[in-house]
Amino acid sequence: MNEGFIAVHVGAGYHSMQKKHAYKTLCKKSCQKVTIMLKNGCSAVEAVSTAVVSLENSLLTNAGCGSNLSLSRKVECDASVMDGRTLNFGAVGALSDYMNPVLVAKELLLHQNNENLSLHRIPPCVLVGEGASQWARSRGLKNVKADLLVSENALHTYSKYKRKVEEAENDPRKFIQREPANNKILYSEAAEMENNACISSETWLPGDESLMLDTVGAVGMDCCGNVASAVSSGGIVLKHPGRLGQAAIYGCGSWAQNSLSSTEPAVAVTTSGNGEHLIKTMFARTCAETLISNTDGVTGFHYVFNTKFLESPFLIHTSEKLAGVLAMKFDPVSNSVEVLWAHNTFSMVLGYMSTHLSKAVVGYISFVIIKLIHIQISVCHQYSLLLQWKETTKQ
Amino acid sequence: MNEGFIAVHVGAGYHSMQKKHAYKTLCKKSCQKVTIMLKNGCSAVEAVSTAVVSLENSLLTNAGCGSNLSLSRKVECDASVMDGRTLNFGAVGALSDYMNPVLVAKELLLHQNNENLSLHRIPPCVLVGEGASQWARSRGLKNVKADLLVSENALHTYSKYKRKVEEAENDPRKFIQREPANNKILYSEAAEMENNACISSETWLPGDESLMLDTVGAVGMDCCGNVASAVSSGGIVLKHPGRLGQAAIYGCGSWAQNSLSSTEPAVAVTTSGNGEHLIKTMFARTCAETLISNTDGVTGFHYVFNTKFLESPFLIHTSEKLAGVLAMKFDPVSNSVEVLWAHNTFSMVLGYMSTHLSKAVVGYISFVIIKLIHIQISVCHQYSLLLQWKETTKQ
Repeated sequence: MNEGFIAVHVGAGYHSMQKKHAYKTLCKKSCQKVTIMLKNGCSAVEAVSTAVVSLENSLLTNAGCGSNLSLSRKVECDASVMDGRTLNFGAVGALSDYMNPVLVAKELLLHQNNENLSLHRIPPCVLVGEGASQWARSRGLKNVKADLLVSENALHTYSKYKRKVEEAENDPRKFIQREPANNKILYSEAAEMENNACISSETWLPGDESLMLDTVGAVGMDCCGNVASAVSSGGIVLKHPGRLGQAAIYGCGSWAQNSLSSTEPAVAVTTSGNGEHLIKTMFARTCAETLISNTDGVTGFHYVFNTKFLESPFLIHTSEKLAGVLAMKFDPVSNSVEVLWAHNTFSMVLGYMSTHLSKAVVGYISFVIIKLIHIQISVCHQYSLLLQWKETTKQ
Repeated sequence: MNEGFIAVHVGAGYHSMQKKHAYKTLCKKSCQKVTIMLKNGCSAVEAVSTAVVSLENSLLTNAGCGSNLSLSRKVECDASVMDGRTLNFGAVGALSDYMNPVLVAKELLLHQNNENLSLHRIPPCVLVGEGASQWARSRGLKNVKADLLVSENALHTYSKYKRKVEEAENDPRKFIQREPANNKILYSEAAEMENNACISSETWLPGDESLMLDTVGAVGMDCCGNVASAVSSGGIVLKHPGRLGQAAIYGCGSWAQNSLSSTEPAVAVTTSGNGEHLIKTMFARTCAETLISNTDGVTGFHYVFNTKFLESPFLIHTSEKLAGVLAMKFDPVSNSVEVLWAHNTFSMVLGYMSTHLSKAVVGYISFVIIKLIHIQISVCHQYSLLLQWKETTKQ
């Protein structure tokens, strides 16, 4: 039997060193669970959705239950799934009453395969807010009371930063120090600095270690060679209600594309980081295009991260650009999978596993020199895995 | 003084022959109003937003007041604006209580120029639903009661098609005739056939001429050479509440990019048609990229419409693909503007004007042979305009 593959991450951002083990265990369990399903023949879409469900279900992540709270003290989630086989895409945005937003996105995706609306009406691919919730209920997906998604940790963080914002609005310079000459940020020496897509690193104070993460995601390939990707995010702390991040936007949070020929690679990508910047650079699709056209994945990833994100003309007026990417590339010629990741945030935690491995490979990757994070990517890794894979007819 | 330029359209879809004159007058008045503003030095963003406001304010269009109604009998609008100078983008989705959704999108765009949130929080670029409305109110934009946006015509159409959908759901074959062999659609000979992004042409009956339009839009250039684009849409008739169409999605409904050098063209694009298909092909950005890289605009437009839309791998499982595009390309070498448009819907009505023309050029473009609409683009036009334009420092 051909092999399947899964890779997951719990966001690019700041992961507390104290919780390092818990993050890694979460990634490991997610990979192991999905690998068993892949061995039993589940599809790539099912695999990445299940992986993201397990990440959403953990209170450690900023996705599903326990997500960051918006300015109006609510959880509002974005999620999307892309199927490399059909190239269909399903996304939800600003969803407040589902434990697993990714399952609503998956349902939207699968619904498009049927094209079964009466009078040839076209199934939606993106639904937001209460409408998304209504639709999900009509498809038999059970919602919960919105308050159930609000965790104690999230409430604590919300209260603290709400107060800080109010104080800063009275005294805008209170939390911002800049070197006048070059506008560079001065970091507090005492702080274990971190990045978050909402409140930038220089405003963060030590000890605030909860919820400093962004979008979680998974990329995977089933035993038929189909790839898929899925992402889910509670969005940024104190975001304005109704704000959509890259996880809800086509081409920005997730991308997946099967091999179009016997020599072309299949790729799947998820992004994490600053939603607005990942939208403006359409970063998931941009990374996928680069991986397809570059023979060497690492070189391609370095190129795309530098030229299409950090130096992108679409972010030219932006001082702080934060992103993380987790991607996989399957080469049908060599039957190998490359797992690639890159980030310029403080840390990224991820795991990956193929169906022939007995355990998942997991890692916590962080920077040593914080000051460099805005000017270079310090982490760009690759892992090659030769799969026991034969040419087969795809599902 | 250098010249400015504006082009508007009232959607690709089906425009009633009886209302042909009214559509053309609407386009003309919009162009004339904006041209006066351009002569007085208004920005490209201001120009395209004002043009779209005038289209939204007309009950003839499917935008703003008088828009199509969703399944829950409400108006829910999408709109976006892109600024070719800053490359910023603002979008709203599923907005129910604003007469001019495009003004909320413009406000979101302009707000990003300031980057003035306390604690370095990043201004949103996409807001949806009630959150978008709240934000707009907080910025001083006055909302209206949602019911005020519901026109009598829209209600009439809603009731009729709601009934048809209910009937079709009891008898799915009632409104669908297909040739079993090739799955091609059989058109009713009697019908003046039309297309609409919601209910496809074969299900439409003669006499239903109201609201058969999709997204309206404008592209323009100010006297400093900055380009911009704006779109607005009530979305598809009987859409699911919360559904976002291309008008709310980055890269799909609108695109604008200034010249990056003294030889590179500036381009602005708006799309109209089937929202889900325009999202999956990221059609606004795709058209812009093609216009920038092709010396000949018409050849480029033919290429992009055929290969990147009608034959796109992202729409391979889609039987009916409907789109319209209106674009402008300014060549700084020849100081000329090309206006380009293409559509495979029944009709498209548009107008354009430069500040040195005394009146707007307007047109109603339609197909003669309806059966061909799914297999070729019958309309792909270009209008070249030599501008009195000098090299100048951009704003």
